[in-house]
Amino acid sequence: MQTSNVYLDNNGTTLLDARALEAMLPYLQNQYGNATSRHIYGRTARQAIDQAREQVAEACGAHPSQVIFTSGGTEADNFAIHGIVSKSENQSQIAVSAIEHPAVTRPSFALRLQGHRVAVIGADQQGQTDPLSLEVVLEKPTSLVSVMLANNETGVIQDIAKLAEIAKSKGALFHTDAVQALGKIPVNFDALGVHAMTVSSHKVHGPQGAGALILDKRVDIAPLIHGGGQERGLRSGTENVAAIVGFGAACALLKNELAERVNKTRQLRSELEKGLAKLGAITFGNKAERLPNTSFFAFNQIDGETLVMALDRKGFAVASGSACSSDSTEPSHVLMAMGVAPDLARGAVRVSLSAANTEEQLSAFLAVLADEVTRLRQLTAVAI
Amino acid sequence: MQTSNVYLDNNGTTLLDARALEAMLPYLQNQYGNATSRHIYGRTARQAIDQAREQVAEACGAHPSQVIFTSGGTEADNFAIHGIVSKSENQSQIAVSAIEHPAVTRPSFALRLQGHRVAVIGADQQGQTDPLSLEVVLEKPTSLVSVMLANNETGVIQDIAKLAEIAKSKGALFHTDAVQALGKIPVNFDALGVHAMTVSSHKVHGPQGAGALILDKRVDIAPLIHGGGQERGLRSGTENVAAIVGFGAACALLKNELAERVNKTRQLRSELEKGLAKLGAITFGNKAERLPNTSFFAFNQIDGETLVMALDRKGFAVASGSACSSDSTEPSHVLMAMGVAPDLARGAVRVSLSAANTEEQLSAFLAVLADEVTRLRQLTAVAI
Repeated sequence: MQTSNVYLDNNGTTLLDARALEAMLPYLQNQYGNATSRHIYGRTARQAIDQAREQVAEACGAHPSQVIFTSGGTEADNFAIHGIVSKSENQSQIAVSAIEHPAVTRPSFALRLQGHRVAVIGADQQGQTDPLSLEVVLEKPTSLVSVMLANNETGVIQDIAKLAEIAKSKGALFHTDAVQALGKIPVNFDALGVHAMTVSSHKVHGPQGAGALILDKRVDIAPLIHGGGQERGLRSGTENVAAIVGFGAACALLKNELAERVNKTRQLRSELEKGLAKLGAITFGNKAERLPNTSFFAFNQIDGETLVMALDRKGFAVASGSACSSDSTEPSHVLMAMGVAPDLARGAVRVSLSAANTEEQLSAFLAVLADEVTRLRQLTAVAI
Repeated sequence: MQTSNVYLDNNGTTLLDARALEAMLPYLQNQYGNATSRHIYGRTARQAIDQAREQVAEACGAHPSQVIFTSGGTEADNFAIHGIVSKSENQSQIAVSAIEHPAVTRPSFALRLQGHRVAVIGADQQGQTDPLSLEVVLEKPTSLVSVMLANNETGVIQDIAKLAEIAKSKGALFHTDAVQALGKIPVNFDALGVHAMTVSSHKVHGPQGAGALILDKRVDIAPLIHGGGQERGLRSGTENVAAIVGFGAACALLKNELAERVNKTRQLRSELEKGLAKLGAITFGNKAERLPNTSFFAFNQIDGETLVMALDRKGFAVASGSACSSDSTEPSHVLMAMGVAPDLARGAVRVSLSAANTEEQLSAFLAVLADEVTRLRQLTAVAI
């Protein structure tokens, strides 16, 4: 990898903060206990997990006893969906937004095999989940509603507090996938009024391999992974102590640094989008409230995947959509839900910033982007 | 933690090998891509995972395409049980040995809620799963048999090749939990003749947070965790690249080092058990073939938990049973299955060695053990 590469894919994953790595290293070296063991090695590991639980809880506006550690966001989403719905009445309805990540939609659809129904809540042209659509869906008895706090592609922030209130008025439980929100905007489990919330370490400059479900303890939930009884019996398996410690350390940094990260990325994105507008890009969801770091855009008649690969060759790492999905040439389901024409949607490119990005990087990016768009347009013209 | 502590709980977890940590560090620093991303960061992560897949496969006598990475052994066990049984006919029978880890028995029992039955295969007094008991169990149509390759408490090695042949003759699929076997004895997926096999990184001096299910690709299996479609759609979620790389590196070391580790631990254990016999300990399963590093023993009228805590205070980390289970004062289910009297079983203590242990450590351990046993016997005598 060239050291001159510019990483603009922070919704895909983030650089592990050096301070979080430092916190992890003892647990990758001499402090290597199994946290279930009762000897000093085990107790040391247990204390480290307990501290991380407090750090994650504080970053999420939750109580430590509400934090259930998992191997990551996808597992936490599956746990929430499967665990809550399997405790509900037979053949209940699950309602998911049209813009959800596959980590929510696919476990929901898998539950159809057990007789549950899945209803999809529509979005508007700005990528905002439609409260009216939720109300229509809730005319049928519904056990669980799941709507993400911020969309991974557009960055559009959903009005979860309002949606959760609607759901609760109809007796449905509410889960939100806050994987993309944590670390980019303030996240408060209590204030959102949801029953369950998913967060992930590697999206907040923590290590890969840790996540959590924040859970209202009054909610009846079945484990997804059974075994030795870790995490109050709700998530068995030897804890990944180092990853959990790193997750906690990354969360602890947010207290003093989140506001600065928000300001920095918002300012950078503003510069970026000025440049994009000059180049004729269409930016999706930009009339809605968005994560400050995310810009999802397209150029007419330019294929997004081709552009991503061209930019990669020039040293700029961006995404053509969700970096968390398997290979696919289908246009983004998020843009489809927003009513974007498939041809334009196939052009979508996502830039997602971190506070470590600089104005110089974005100027260089815009210059290369201008060249590549011109070059690809000429190629297309020749091909036609 | 005192640096003078002696770690004798290597079936609980192991020290991450410094060479495996070294292999991991780039992926915890500048090489931080999401392996699904198509840019250079993502491709670099993908290549690292591919290499680890080859390393794990080679250590397991399997083909890389048979390796499905998970977050650990417990998840892989759950995936095997749930994934295979949910693809079988309705209300089928699952057969598990009486000495299985909760990571196998508990997901099996959870499937009873979906109408499946669970049958338990008995063990003999040496802790060996009884082929005749399996044959009796298989008189009822059975979708899946799960018997571990080596027991975590006694270290007793099961005749998996024979048991798998019996199961297959009755049309049942066969899963083996090889978590405790890998890294301690040669493990060969092909030679065992099983359909699915679980392995775990942190038991072989790899990091916590990685494991794998080795799977015969002809077996129809449903994912446990749905989402972005990683691991051929069988285990979604952003890969924990560093942990997978460390797992691969730890497995790669086995090629040149396994024989030496076997010899070293076997020799150390032999010395240990001579000393234990002199102190009057009863060692469980010692007439069966065992892992070379494991010794599971008890003293009459001495509580195992009390002894473990006393040894901990003297700087020796041992286990009172399965370190992977949640707190419990029940005697070991493994010893119960072997017909050990509950009072004696409550005295059980496990020493599990690594090749890093020394004769000096074991001499010191035996001396302290002798003192503590004498002291506890006196306390008991006074109390009576």
